[in-house]
Amino acid sequence: MNFTADPTLDLFFTPKGVALIGASHNPTKLGFGLARNLIQSGYRGAVHFVNPTGGVLLERPVYAAINDVPDPVDMAVLLIPAPFVPDTLRACGQRGVKAAIIAAGGFRETGPEGAALEQECLEIAYEFGMRLIGPNCIGILDTHIPFDTTFLPPPGPTPGDVAFISHSGAICAAVIDWARGQGFGLSRLVSLGNQTDVQETDMLTTVAADPYTKVITLYLEGVRDGRRFVEQALKVTRHKPIIALKVGRFASGQKAVASHTGALAGAESAFDAAFRRAGVIRANTSEELFDWARALAWCPPPKGRRVAILTNAGGPGVTAADTLESRNMELALLQPKTLDALRQILPPAASVNNPVDMLASASPIQYAECTRVLLADPDVDSLLIILPPPPMHSVGGVARTMIPIIYSADKPVVAAVMGERLIQEAVMHFRAAHVPEYRFPERAATALAILADRADYLGSELPVPVQVTNVDKTTVVRILKKAAAELAPGEFMPQRMATEMLTAYGIPTPPVKLAQSAAEAVELARSMERPVALKVASPDIPHKSDVGGVLLNLVNADDIVAGFERVVGNAREARPAAEILGANVQTMILKGQEVIVGVARDPQFGPVVMFGSGGVEVEGLQDVDFALAPVTQQEAEGMLARTWAGCKLKGFRNLPPADRTAVLDIIIRLGQLAADFPQISEIEINPVRVLPEGKVAFAVDVRARIN
Amino acid sequence: MNFTADPTLDLFFTPKGVALIGASHNPTKLGFGLARNLIQSGYRGAVHFVNPTGGVLLERPVYAAINDVPDPVDMAVLLIPAPFVPDTLRACGQRGVKAAIIAAGGFRETGPEGAALEQECLEIAYEFGMRLIGPNCIGILDTHIPFDTTFLPPPGPTPGDVAFISHSGAICAAVIDWARGQGFGLSRLVSLGNQTDVQETDMLTTVAADPYTKVITLYLEGVRDGRRFVEQALKVTRHKPIIALKVGRFASGQKAVASHTGALAGAESAFDAAFRRAGVIRANTSEELFDWARALAWCPPPKGRRVAILTNAGGPGVTAADTLESRNMELALLQPKTLDALRQILPPAASVNNPVDMLASASPIQYAECTRVLLADPDVDSLLIILPPPPMHSVGGVARTMIPIIYSADKPVVAAVMGERLIQEAVMHFRAAHVPEYRFPERAATALAILADRADYLGSELPVPVQVTNVDKTTVVRILKKAAAELAPGEFMPQRMATEMLTAYGIPTPPVKLAQSAAEAVELARSMERPVALKVASPDIPHKSDVGGVLLNLVNADDIVAGFERVVGNAREARPAAEILGANVQTMILKGQEVIVGVARDPQFGPVVMFGSGGVEVEGLQDVDFALAPVTQQEAEGMLARTWAGCKLKGFRNLPPADRTAVLDIIIRLGQLAADFPQISEIEINPVRVLPEGKVAFAVDVRARIN
Repeated sequence: MNFTADPTLDLFFTPKGVALIGASHNPTKLGFGLARNLIQSGYRGAVHFVNPTGGVLLERPVYAAINDVPDPVDMAVLLIPAPFVPDTLRACGQRGVKAAIIAAGGFRETGPEGAALEQECLEIAYEFGMRLIGPNCIGILDTHIPFDTTFLPPPGPTPGDVAFISHSGAICAAVIDWARGQGFGLSRLVSLGNQTDVQETDMLTTVAADPYTKVITLYLEGVRDGRRFVEQALKVTRHKPIIALKVGRFASGQKAVASHTGALAGAESAFDAAFRRAGVIRANTSEELFDWARALAWCPPPKGRRVAILTNAGGPGVTAADTLESRNMELALLQPKTLDALRQILPPAASVNNPVDMLASASPIQYAECTRVLLADPDVDSLLIILPPPPMHSVGGVARTMIPIIYSADKPVVAAVMGERLIQEAVMHFRAAHVPEYRFPERAATALAILADRADYLGSELPVPVQVTNVDKTTVVRILKKAAAELAPGEFMPQRMATEMLTAYGIPTPPVKLAQSAAEAVELARSMERPVALKVASPDIPHKSDVGGVLLNLVNADDIVAGFERVVGNAREARPAAEILGANVQTMILKGQEVIVGVARDPQFGPVVMFGSGGVEVEGLQDVDFALAPVTQQEAEGMLARTWAGCKLKGFRNLPPADRTAVLDIIIRLGQLAADFPQISEIEINPVRVLPEGKVAFAVDVRARIN
Repeated sequence: MNFTADPTLDLFFTPKGVALIGASHNPTKLGFGLARNLIQSGYRGAVHFVNPTGGVLLERPVYAAINDVPDPVDMAVLLIPAPFVPDTLRACGQRGVKAAIIAAGGFRETGPEGAALEQECLEIAYEFGMRLIGPNCIGILDTHIPFDTTFLPPPGPTPGDVAFISHSGAICAAVIDWARGQGFGLSRLVSLGNQTDVQETDMLTTVAADPYTKVITLYLEGVRDGRRFVEQALKVTRHKPIIALKVGRFASGQKAVASHTGALAGAESAFDAAFRRAGVIRANTSEELFDWARALAWCPPPKGRRVAILTNAGGPGVTAADTLESRNMELALLQPKTLDALRQILPPAASVNNPVDMLASASPIQYAECTRVLLADPDVDSLLIILPPPPMHSVGGVARTMIPIIYSADKPVVAAVMGERLIQEAVMHFRAAHVPEYRFPERAATALAILADRADYLGSELPVPVQVTNVDKTTVVRILKKAAAELAPGEFMPQRMATEMLTAYGIPTPPVKLAQSAAEAVELARSMERPVALKVASPDIPHKSDVGGVLLNLVNADDIVAGFERVVGNAREARPAAEILGANVQTMILKGQEVIVGVARDPQFGPVVMFGSGGVEVEGLQDVDFALAPVTQQEAEGMLARTWAGCKLKGFRNLPPADRTAVLDIIIRLGQLAADFPQISEIEINPVRVLPEGKVAFAVDVRARIN
């Protein structure tokens, strides 16, 4: 592994002595619950209770203050009213405590007064070189140390291999209970609360470095520093899977932005792009988070995407096949000797072709023997067993008979054990043997797809953003300086300025020249290949066609004169306040396909590149995909593969293949431009015209602004 | 209700006496299980066992043959080897049995010999006026009669209000067990097997007529007669909801069809259209089927889509809000007096705005009081309660305190009770009170959306297909006769012939004339508005642009002459075997928006209309929607609302609003044409050009063929 735990954070999991400040004698108080959990967790270090009342709690002395606590003590958990926290924290620092959990609430979440208290705590922590978790959190637990600083009602989680890091405290109790009910254990749980010091990103490598943790699950409400999150997650995901449930999907969309890219690049697109870059698996529901965690913790990675389905019922077999197909999995084509072996085991009316339907009469022995045969087929990468209660056998018996065979295989096997009460014995057997089991075939099939995705990820190249070297940064610096001096905040750059930036970064543009009069427009057009387009030139009008500011297909002088007056006139009428510089005259590139390439800046993840179907209908069609800038070669190619605009570049019907390489180059260069110059807040080429011949794509129209 | 049970099928649920033929003394045999279930179900009619071995079984005599069975006996269940079934069935007919369930397998599913046996059974049933369920099925059960003809392992389902009709037999055991585990009861269960006589559609009204059944759930592998299914389902869905899980989604796509409509109108699109017409709710997974059934059985319909969320944890509240938004639900804007009342109940740090976050400390009383206040707000249509285990209270206590308030409200309330073991007491209380509860907030939120959809459906108009009267059927009859005489099977109609059909049905087309020579093309163009288009005329070339058979924007005579030679030449070169009649000359309609309207014929549901984004990229963009033909006004409008092509007709950016009414008219008329003439197997207008002014849309290009 190319990462280790941060030692200042690892201390949270390896304290020699813990002081609970705010331990309570009253069994209905959280301070009692926390004291109880600390003791009952079986923690083998020193446990000290602190409360001004003194006395004895759970057979231990209660000290009046942290200063009275004997050695060893390097960690403190504070569960006292917020106003008392800063002084107590300072006392902890003086006593040599290096890790503190502020479980108490009453800080930033309650208003400015609480926020000031929280800030004070952070400063004290800095002063003493102390790390802080919380405030307003549930704390942490580790089932292997073992160690529990939460006040959650018992029982705590069973020891296991799934770690859980959460922005939500309240959900932790539910997660512990789910895990218990679904038969898997937790390794570590971290509730982050207000994150005044330690944030989700800080915890990734420290939790992943735990040898008992096989999978890290995240419940995220956002991330503080998007790029650092990606960087830290990338250290982990090559070794241990991270699955994230990001909530607040709909609330987080940005509004009121001027470019298509800005409008479509909401936080969710940025998260998708970031998770893809970091190899983080995104769960869509809480249920998926833990469905997938179990499979990833317990199953080896499959060699490929070919699945065999073994069932005693046709219907659920079809349901599973539907789900597999929707997830890009394949039904394995069984080898002839596999089919022969299955025929030996099963009655003639059974279907030996995948999905293998053994019929309702299938016995435990038949289930087991078919499992053995299917797992032995080299063309089967993973196996899905479907098991509704068989009419004349016990489901538990079926599970018991199969488990030794599943155990000795190096291929993933998951089970859809259908039902609820009758199947409990089978479920218990599968859980004990670490065979992921689900109540519904769709969920079992999805788990196999996630395993295959994970195997693909492990086989993929490390994401290295392409760095193009033949770019002219000096020119861009000059243009941006000029723009900063001349433009109002938020104003769009004049078209020619933006075009010059593209040129400096090696993005081809068709010749365009600014005409300040109709006569000049005619003069300029004379030197160009015709037809030409006239586009009103105004820094205040980003969507020129909205105001009738664009005319196409102009060839002769009369039309150009009339056109100039018209585009300028239309723009003046529609936007009387806009500054109008004249009209840009541009050779029209009529051939080729139209796509859009843009970059927007996400507040959490920075520049995000968009690619997709261009034109005016970008937002209507929403045929777009995103990647973090600068992009990797795989990401650029992935954007083409995931959009219709990208697929179409290969050619479609009478549309000849277009120059994909040129498009990839523009995506890479535009992403690099935006990454190199953080001043560029939005830049969008729409359309890029991709020619079928000549191996080139042109940026026909570009909009950019700086912040 | 405007439907009643079919009396010949109702007999399956109201027999006076049942004979089990194939009752077994051997407890490991299905014939024993069935005998046991019949007795243990508590059935109050006569139960007779038949087996040549005779003797006594479960304290009853076993008769050697059906002839020996005393009165009353009007129903028989046959569980004997397939070859013996026909003779036994005949004996049943002679004995006066009017309803028979053939549980035995060994029929059509095993090959031609079994199919012949099955056909023989059907003929015997006709001869004696007997109805048949099966063969190869699990039988039926009714928990209220009570009555159970299955051989499934006990315990059977608890009495309840959800009926289940299934094409899959094996899944029935799982469904009974799920229902028990998820705390809801079944009213009736019907396993249909091979459906030699009774099919899914037959059972709809008979099962729905059962007063105990509040919701009908279907597990479908297809339907035999699509239109009859829609008609029967429509009788039911205005009174009781039907939820269907249709499996085989991916396997069922049609391949190798020539039109865009044909390519996109797979069986799934047809099912979507049919379910929409019939008001059947389509579940995507087995889990949704029963999640939704519970909510629909237990909750009143909400007045609107405004939901209040009550939670003790922020995170899951956000998750629920995300799901609601994705399902077109709204977060209710609470009234000021509601906010005041909540402030009285909750601590200052709580959030009284929806989602109402009471904080982790929320007590049972706070949960209950907030529930009362939220349900009293007239701007709240339904309530979602989120309940992870609270740190210092019992979840069961919270549930108990809230239930009386939920009970007395006439608004839907669902609960996300998060966890597994700690929450069991709360879950039991909610189930007993018929409050739908789910483990995850996403599933609870989705259930509320389904309730709102159902309320919208009940408030919608009955679907009455529009029948346009000013159509000229006589002309179409003539054209189709001519086409049948002249065209080879599967051949496309000449463009002019198809255009003539459109004209007869009042669909406007731009003038088009066939030129057999270049000179004739020039002559024809002279009489038209220019520019004109030239399109090669050949019944063998459906996609003319694929072969370079289309030229646009021709104005002068020279270009038309050259163009004629070119389109004809290109076509000859690309398709040497094609019959080429010349080229069609057509005025070009350059303005307006492009959409596609087509009809394909689905083997199960007949003509299906498609509407969406036209042009050549139809299949790439897949911006299309479907409805059964002839379509209703609402369906036509719904197709516009659900597609980007339809939304765009309202105007977009610089695109002026286009004539939506004209498009609706074309959808309605084309659907009616295809419905009126079943000989038309495919007809597609691509593009329809929709003009911004002049209130009209033109069918620019049309392809049609007959079968």
